[in-house]
Amino acid sequence: MWFKGLTLGLLAFCFTNNILAGGVETFDSDYAAFMETSGSSFFTVSNLWLLLAAALVFTMHLGFATLESGLSRSKNTVNILFKNVFIISMGIITYALYGFNAMYPGFAEGSAGIFALGSWFNPADIVTAANMTAEYADYTWYTDFIFQAMFAATAATIVSGAVAERVKLSSFMIFATLLVAFAYPTAGSWQWGGGWLSAAGFYDFAGSSIVHAFGGFAALACVIVLGPRLGKYSDGKVKPIPGHSMPLAAIGVFLLFLGWFGFNGGSVLNADPYLVSLVFCTTALAASGGALGSILFSYFLLKKPDLSMGLNGFLAGLVGITAGADVIAPGESIIVGLIAGAIVVLSIIFLDGLKIDDPVGAISVHGICGIWGTLAVALFSDAATIGAQLTGTLAYSAFAFLFSLIVFSVLKFTIGVRVSEKEEEEGLDYSEHGQSAYNI
Amino acid sequence: MWFKGLTLGLLAFCFTNNILAGGVETFDSDYAAFMETSGSSFFTVSNLWLLLAAALVFTMHLGFATLESGLSRSKNTVNILFKNVFIISMGIITYALYGFNAMYPGFAEGSAGIFALGSWFNPADIVTAANMTAEYADYTWYTDFIFQAMFAATAATIVSGAVAERVKLSSFMIFATLLVAFAYPTAGSWQWGGGWLSAAGFYDFAGSSIVHAFGGFAALACVIVLGPRLGKYSDGKVKPIPGHSMPLAAIGVFLLFLGWFGFNGGSVLNADPYLVSLVFCTTALAASGGALGSILFSYFLLKKPDLSMGLNGFLAGLVGITAGADVIAPGESIIVGLIAGAIVVLSIIFLDGLKIDDPVGAISVHGICGIWGTLAVALFSDAATIGAQLTGTLAYSAFAFLFSLIVFSVLKFTIGVRVSEKEEEEGLDYSEHGQSAYNI
Amino acid sequence: MWFKGLTLGLLAFCFTNNILAGGVETFDSDYAAFMETSGSSFFTVSNLWLLLAAALVFTMHLGFATLESGLSRSKNTVNILFKNVFIISMGIITYALYGFNAMYPGFAEGSAGIFALGSWFNPADIVTAANMTAEYADYTWYTDFIFQAMFAATAATIVSGAVAERVKLSSFMIFATLLVAFAYPTAGSWQWGGGWLSAAGFYDFAGSSIVHAFGGFAALACVIVLGPRLGKYSDGKVKPIPGHSMPLAAIGVFLLFLGWFGFNGGSVLNADPYLVSLVFCTTALAASGGALGSILFSYFLLKKPDLSMGLNGFLAGLVGITAGADVIAPGESIIVGLIAGAIVVLSIIFLDGLKIDDPVGAISVHGICGIWGTLAVALFSDAATIGAQLTGTLAYSAFAFLFSLIVFSVLKFTIGVRVSEKEEEEGLDYSEHGQSAYNI
Repeated sequence: MWFKGLTLGLLAFCFTNNILAGGVETFDSDYAAFMETSGSSFFTVSNLWLLLAAALVFTMHLGFATLESGLSRSKNTVNILFKNVFIISMGIITYALYGFNAMYPGFAEGSAGIFALGSWFNPADIVTAANMTAEYADYTWYTDFIFQAMFAATAATIVSGAVAERVKLSSFMIFATLLVAFAYPTAGSWQWGGGWLSAAGFYDFAGSSIVHAFGGFAALACVIVLGPRLGKYSDGKVKPIPGHSMPLAAIGVFLLFLGWFGFNGGSVLNADPYLVSLVFCTTALAASGGALGSILFSYFLLKKPDLSMGLNGFLAGLVGITAGADVIAPGESIIVGLIAGAIVVLSIIFLDGLKIDDPVGAISVHGICGIWGTLAVALFSDAATIGAQLTGTLAYSAFAFLFSLIVFSVLKFTIGVRVSEKEEEEGLDYSEHGQSAYNI
Repeated sequence: MWFKGLTLGLLAFCFTNNILAGGVETFDSDYAAFMETSGSSFFTVSNLWLLLAAALVFTMHLGFATLESGLSRSKNTVNILFKNVFIISMGIITYALYGFNAMYPGFAEGSAGIFALGSWFNPADIVTAANMTAEYADYTWYTDFIFQAMFAATAATIVSGAVAERVKLSSFMIFATLLVAFAYPTAGSWQWGGGWLSAAGFYDFAGSSIVHAFGGFAALACVIVLGPRLGKYSDGKVKPIPGHSMPLAAIGVFLLFLGWFGFNGGSVLNADPYLVSLVFCTTALAASGGALGSILFSYFLLKKPDLSMGLNGFLAGLVGITAGADVIAPGESIIVGLIAGAIVVLSIIFLDGLKIDDPVGAISVHGICGIWGTLAVALFSDAATIGAQLTGTLAYSAFAFLFSLIVFSVLKFTIGVRVSEKEEEEGLDYSEHGQSAYNI
Repeated sequence: MWFKGLTLGLLAFCFTNNILAGGVETFDSDYAAFMETSGSSFFTVSNLWLLLAAALVFTMHLGFATLESGLSRSKNTVNILFKNVFIISMGIITYALYGFNAMYPGFAEGSAGIFALGSWFNPADIVTAANMTAEYADYTWYTDFIFQAMFAATAATIVSGAVAERVKLSSFMIFATLLVAFAYPTAGSWQWGGGWLSAAGFYDFAGSSIVHAFGGFAALACVIVLGPRLGKYSDGKVKPIPGHSMPLAAIGVFLLFLGWFGFNGGSVLNADPYLVSLVFCTTALAASGGALGSILFSYFLLKKPDLSMGLNGFLAGLVGITAGADVIAPGESIIVGLIAGAIVVLSIIFLDGLKIDDPVGAISVHGICGIWGTLAVALFSDAATIGAQLTGTLAYSAFAFLFSLIVFSVLKFTIGVRVSEKEEEEGLDYSEHGQSAYNI
C-alpha cells in the first residue's frame, strides 16, 4: 500500500490520518442481527427515503445554478456555473471534514461543546451498530451525513445569486467557504443540534430560518458591502437588467420545486406515511398559492402577467411553508403561500427602491419569506409561540448578516470583493475565466 | 390569532371556513396503533412509492413546459412558460378545493352523486385513521390527493401546446381553469371514481383516454375554433414553422419519459413488486418502440432521420402503453409502441393536410395515440373487450371535444380567444407580457 | 385477436413467436403466497429501490445528451440529440431481445454458455415465482431487466460524444447497435454474468471498467479510425473548438451526478441501509473531490478557473469511485476523487498533444479514469489484488478497443464513417437531417 501511504502523506497538510482511516472494514456484526429482526423494515424504508430526499435536494443545486444563470446576463454565465460547481463540491467536503459534527455535536462521542472537532470519518464513531440502526435514528449515520450535507451548501448558493455579475471570484470563494464550513453549522447547531434555540421552544421544521433566512440575510450584507451593478441605478431611476434566458430560469424554478419535496419531505426524518404525505401536500399547495399570489399581486401593481414574479412566487411559497410544513393544515398552507407570493413582490420592489441590487431576488425570496414562514408557524399552528419564532428568526438573520458583513468587509479592505468597471462591462466570463458561455 | 382571522376574512369570498379549518391537530390516535402492527410495512413502502410517483409526475410539467417552448418560436417563450406556471398552480389548488372529491365521490363521506361538493379539507374526513391506513387504501388520503392532483393539470397542459403562439392569454386561463377544475374531474369520475364506464367493463390503467385522449380532443376543438397561425397555410401550401430550440424540446421529452415511470408506475396504487416492475418494463419498451417506429416510418416517408419525429415517437409510445401498461406483455408492448410511432407520424401529416395547426403535435400524440392505446388493451390482453374500449375512449374524446368546443366558442364570441395579427407577429412575449425570453 | 396475429406476422421477420408470447397471463400463484409472508418487506423495498435506481440511470441519458450537445458546436446539435434518442431506444430493445440473457446466461433456464440465445420474454422463464421472489434475488426479473437495460446503452453514448461533429450517422448507428447489442453483454458476462473474471478475483462494483473503460476505449478506437475534426490541429497547433452552450453542458453534468446515485446506489442490488448509504456518501464525496481536484490542478496548469475542467472533474470522480463505491471508506473516496480530477486534466491535455480529438473528453473521463477507479479498489481496500484489477481492466479496455477498431475499420472501408468536408463545415444538422437546432 505504498500508494495509499504516498497520497496520505501528500494530503496530510489538510487533514489528519485518523480522519481518513478506514471505517468500512471494521463494520460491527451487530448490524446483521439488527437487520434480521422485524423492526428493520421501517428502518430500511425510512433510510431509503432519506437517501432519495438527499438526491432531490442535490437536484436543487442544479435548480439554483440554472435559475441564477437564466436571470443574469449571458456574459456572466460561465462565472455563475463555476461558482455553483465550486459551492456544492466545497460544501460537501467541508461538511464531511468539519461541519457535520459541528452542527450535531451530541452525536460525536465525547464531544462536549458546540464545536466537535474531529470528524465522522473517525472509525470509532462510524461503524458501531448504534450508528447504523434504530438506536441512533431511523437511518444510518451515512444517510444522516449525506442528507444534511446537501442542505449545507444552500446558504452560499443563495448568496451567489444576490452578488452575481460583479463579485470577484476569489473573494466569493473564500467567503462561501467560511460561510458554509463554519457559520452555517455553528448557527444550525443552535436548533437542529439541540442548542439554545431548541431549548427556547423555537420551531423550524425544515429551515425557513436556519437555511433560507440565514442565506438571505448573508446575501443582504454582501450586497450592501458590494454595491449595485453598474448602470442599475442611474439618474435616480431603476433600470431593469433583464436575465438572458427565461427558459433556463423556469427550468431552475421547477427543479427547485421538485427538490423541495426532498428538502421538506426528508425533514420528517423517516417514512411515516401520515407526516410525509402531509408535508408533500402542504409544500405543493403553498408553492401553488405562492405563484398565484405573486401573479395576481404583481398584475394589480404592474398591469402585466409577469413570468419572473410567477417563478419567484413558487419559491416564495416554498420558503414560506418550510418552517411549518408538518404542522400547518393543507388549506392554510395555501394562505401561507398566497401571502408569501404577495410579500415577495413587495419586497423586490422595496429593495430596488433602496438601491439594494439583487439580480435574482434572493434576499426577498429566501430572507424575507424565510422570516414570514417562521412566523407563520405561530400564526397557523400551535407548534410554537410568536415570541419564540421571532427570537429564532431574528437570531439566524442577525447572525448571518453580521457574520457576512464582517467577513465580506474584511475581504473588501484586503483583497477586494468587486471586479473592476472594465471587467464588469466585459463580463466575468471573459475577465475571470477567459471563456464564453455561448458560441452559436 | 387575529392574523388568521384577518386572512380568513379576506379569503372568505372563495372558500368557506369549514374548508379551511384544521386537520392536522385532530389527528386520530388509532393511526399510531396501526403503524405498530406488522401490516404497516407494505402500507409504508406503498405510500412512499406513490409520493415519489407524484414527484415524478410533477417533473412531467417541467417536461411539457420545455417541450412546448422548444417547439415554438422564441418570441412566444415567456408566454408559454407563464401558461405552464399558471396551469400547475391553478390545477393543484382547484383540485384541492373541488376536483379531488368530485372525481372520487365515493370517498367523501355522505356524498351520493357525481359531484361531491365540499372538500377534502373537511376535518371530519381527513384525519380519521380509516383514511390514513390500509382500511382506506395502501396510502394515506394526502398521498391520494397529491398523486391525483399532479395528473389533473395535465389535460390543460396538452391544450396549451396545441394553441400556442396565437391564443389570447386571459381566455386561455379561463378555459384551462374550467377544463381542469370541472370537466376533468367530472369525466374522470366515470371510470376512476367508480362511475358508469367502470361498470361497463372499460379498462384504462393510467389514462390513455381519461387523461391523454381527453386532453388531445380538447386541444382539437380549441384549435378548430382558434384557427392556424398566420402564414402556416398560405397559397395552398403547408409552411413549416420550426421550433426555436431543439435542446429544450429534447430535454422536455426525456423528462416526460422519466416522469412517465411515475405516471404509469404509480397507477399500480401500491408497491407490488411484480406489477410495478412489469409497468416499468412495458413503459420503457413501448417508448423505445415508439421512437424507433417514428424514426423508421418518417425516414421512409420523408427520407430524413427526423429528430422531432423521434421525440414525438417516444411520447406516442408512452401514451400508447398507458391504458394497458399492467396487462400487456413486455414483448407486445414493443409492438404497441412501434405502431404508436407510425400512427403519430401519419396523424401529424394528416392534420397538417386538414389545416389543423398544432405547433407541438399534441392532438396526434395525446389524442390519436390515446385512442390507439385504449384499443390496444383489447387487442393485446384480455382485460377488456374492444366494444367497451371503443365506448370509453369515444366517451372521453367526445366529451372533451364538445365541452371545449362550447366553452371556447363562447369565449370567442365574448372576449375573444385570439390575439390581433399585429400582436401575433410581434410575438406574445412582447404583446402580452412586455418581456422577452432571451437577451443574449 | 386478428390484429395481434397480423402485427405478429408483420414483425415475424425480426423475432420469433415464442419470444413475443404472453408472460403476464400465466403468472404463478405462488407469488401471492410469497407476498403474504413476513419475508416480503425487504423484497418489496429493495425492488422499489432498484426501479427508482433504473429511473435515475435513465436520467443519465438526458445528462449525456445535454453534455454532448453543450460541448459541441450548435450546427451539430440536432445530430447529437438524434443519436441519443436512437441509442437509448435501440439499447433498451436490443437488450430485451438478446443482451439481457447473453449477459446473465446462468439465469436463462437451460442455457449453458456465454451466449444465451432466446430471450427473457420466454414465458417459461418469466413468470415463475422463483423469478419474482427472494429465491431469485431481492427484486423481480422485470426489475433486473430494466435496471441493467438502462446501463447497456451507456457504452454507445460514451462513444457518441467522442466521435461527435464529423461521424456519418448511418455508420454510427450500425456501430452503436453492434457495440450495445453484442459486445457489451458479451464482455459484461465475464464479470457480472459469473464468467472468468469473476472467478479470477476481479472486483468492479458498478462498472468503472465494465461500463466506463469499455466505453472509453471503444471511443478511443473510433476516434483513431475517424481522425480529428477539420481545423482542430493545423500548423502543428491545437486550436480549441469551444462548445456552443455551457449551461447545457452544466445541466448535463449535474444530471449525470444525480443519476450516478442510481448507477452506484442501485448496484448494491438491494436496499441494505448500510451499503446504500455508504455508496451515496462515497459517490458524492468522490465527485466533489474530483471537481476540486480538476479545478485546482487546471488552475495551476492553465492559470484560469476553468468551468469545463470543473465539470469533467465531477465526472472523473464519479467514474473513479464506481468500481469501489461499496468498499472504499468515505475519507478515502475524497482522495480517489481528487486524483481522478487531476488525471482527467492531464489526460485531456495529453490526448490533445497526440492529436486524438475528443470533443467532450469522453476517452479521458470514462477510459482513463475508469482504469484509475478499477485500480483504486486494490489501493484503498482489501476487495481485490492489484493483479486481478489490472487483468480485469485491461481485458475490458483491450476488448472494447479491438472490437471497435475492427468493426469501425470495416465500416470505414465499406460505407465510410465520416461525412464529407463540405458536410462537416455546413454542420451535420443540415447535411444529415435538413434541420437546424436553433431558430431564434
